[in-house]
Amino acid sequence: MKQTTIYPSATVANMVCGFDVLGFALEEPCDKMTVRLLNEKTVRVVHHDSYGLPTQPEKNVAGVALQAVLNQVKENIGFEVEITKVIKPGSGIGSSAASAAGAVYGANILLGNIFSKTDLVRLAMFGEEVASGAQHADNIAPCIFGGVTLVRSLHPLDVVEVDFPELQVTVIHPQLEIKTSEARKLLKPEVPLGNAVKQWANVGALVAGLMKHDYELITRSLHDYVAEPVRSALIPRFDELKKHSLEAGALGGGISGSGPSVFMLSKNANTAHRVADAMRKVYNETGVDFHVHVTTINRKGVKEK
Amino acid sequence: MKQTTIYPSATVANMVCGFDVLGFALEEPCDKMTVRLLNEKTVRVVHHDSYGLPTQPEKNVAGVALQAVLNQVKENIGFEVEITKVIKPGSGIGSSAASAAGAVYGANILLGNIFSKTDLVRLAMFGEEVASGAQHADNIAPCIFGGVTLVRSLHPLDVVEVDFPELQVTVIHPQLEIKTSEARKLLKPEVPLGNAVKQWANVGALVAGLMKHDYELITRSLHDYVAEPVRSALIPRFDELKKHSLEAGALGGGISGSGPSVFMLSKNANTAHRVADAMRKVYNETGVDFHVHVTTINRKGVKEK
Repeated sequence: MKQTTIYPSATVANMVCGFDVLGFALEEPCDKMTVRLLNEKTVRVVHHDSYGLPTQPEKNVAGVALQAVLNQVKENIGFEVEITKVIKPGSGIGSSAASAAGAVYGANILLGNIFSKTDLVRLAMFGEEVASGAQHADNIAPCIFGGVTLVRSLHPLDVVEVDFPELQVTVIHPQLEIKTSEARKLLKPEVPLGNAVKQWANVGALVAGLMKHDYELITRSLHDYVAEPVRSALIPRFDELKKHSLEAGALGGGISGSGPSVFMLSKNANTAHRVADAMRKVYNETGVDFHVHVTTINRKGVKEK
Repeated sequence: MKQTTIYPSATVANMVCGFDVLGFALEEPCDKMTVRLLNEKTVRVVHHDSYGLPTQPEKNVAGVALQAVLNQVKENIGFEVEITKVIKPGSGIGSSAASAAGAVYGANILLGNIFSKTDLVRLAMFGEEVASGAQHADNIAPCIFGGVTLVRSLHPLDVVEVDFPELQVTVIHPQLEIKTSEARKLLKPEVPLGNAVKQWANVGALVAGLMKHDYELITRSLHDYVAEPVRSALIPRFDELKKHSLEAGALGGGISGSGPSVFMLSKNANTAHRVADAMRKVYNETGVDFHVHVTTINRKGVKEK
């Protein structure tokens, strides 16, 4: 039976100022997914993890994404996917995006790479919709393309790859549940013009800073006038996390997606580990369980190892 | 008497999606300014043009900018400036910014280049304030730095230079008066979040497109959800100008600053001239007097010829 095993990675959406637009892929953690080609028009989902995710294909993120692939092909084929989730659902580092992206990426390998990366993002968005209730691509795009991506437009889909210098990433995942839909409700439906101007000034400057490999400009651009001021209240000790991370040498950072994970960027691994220590110190006092990852930006996208 | 003659150029602020943030310098038109060092603490302004601009130093854009320079130096010196304005006041291509930027640039030459370009932008902003009632830098920054600039922040001032490919510019200046203050009143004080996201997606993508020299991405990013939808009503036949310019091969464009000038970017001079013809054809039917310039982006900033 034709099959492939692939490793879609966690991703960080928003990247502070780039709400709903910017995102990047992490080197770790990655899910493990084995996709098999079947000779009947069906989709089967098997989970080898203990998160209790639905396995009915029409309710499963990977299942819906695979069905979207099947809808594009004429042959009488189907897919089975075995998933071992390592990226914890609800952590805010693109767990559902990894399932959707990995599924379509694996299916595409089995089909002889008939779809472009942009096609794959479009197909995976159907899966993401099951998890979040809305089509968005700010986790899926970096998961599939790797690196830092900017989703200029969803309809039509327009993904821009943004060059960047070496960046280490420290992520703390407090074991709290924040529903994306609830985090979204906190956002005001309108942005005062002055704040909107500051936000797009920072988005433009962050893109320039990344492409110029100008760490100081990256640092100066990592400010969010839209989501962080309202959403950070959902994350215990957010301000302290940020303050101590910056003091430990982080370039900047903020809420990963809609939280609860918080990420910080650093120039090198030593600093990223110092930031991890600073984060642990803040959270050790809270009584909230947490995990800290130190990793880097994944330039490859979905890995085939 | 120590003196210098310099040529500050016209500039285009906003650059469609980059409201209050992006701008670029034009190769032509340029004002001519001669700045002289005086040995008394005073500022004198002489105009060799027929625009009836005030010559009292405290009411003149160049005069106020020169006073701001004097406030930074201890020596008992002063400046006289002779100005021949070529950039018509009120045209929307940075006429007052050129006066302010040219004055401080010339003064700095006479002082032995003691100020950085960012310092000069900061000083020139005092002059611009006289003309527009508010400090802004989206014309002054490109006038002084040349090329395409992004003003990430005004306080503290943070100007980012953005690399770009060859770009030709066609500008039509309909002989109408649009006051910046009135154009500003048309803007809504709040931006719906969905439009704000689209705007910063385009700002980020435009910066990436310019830096990657990706003309197609530049074209796709030149959309404005904030100013153009309300301000274009002040410019007769705006939609037709845009439509026929795009049909003639323009990459995109929009209102220059707060208008009434409209600019279009093209890949090469032939296209820029075709765009000029298309613009003339639209405006020949209106009865409104107009000028059309075909020029390019000025990479140098203020010229010393």
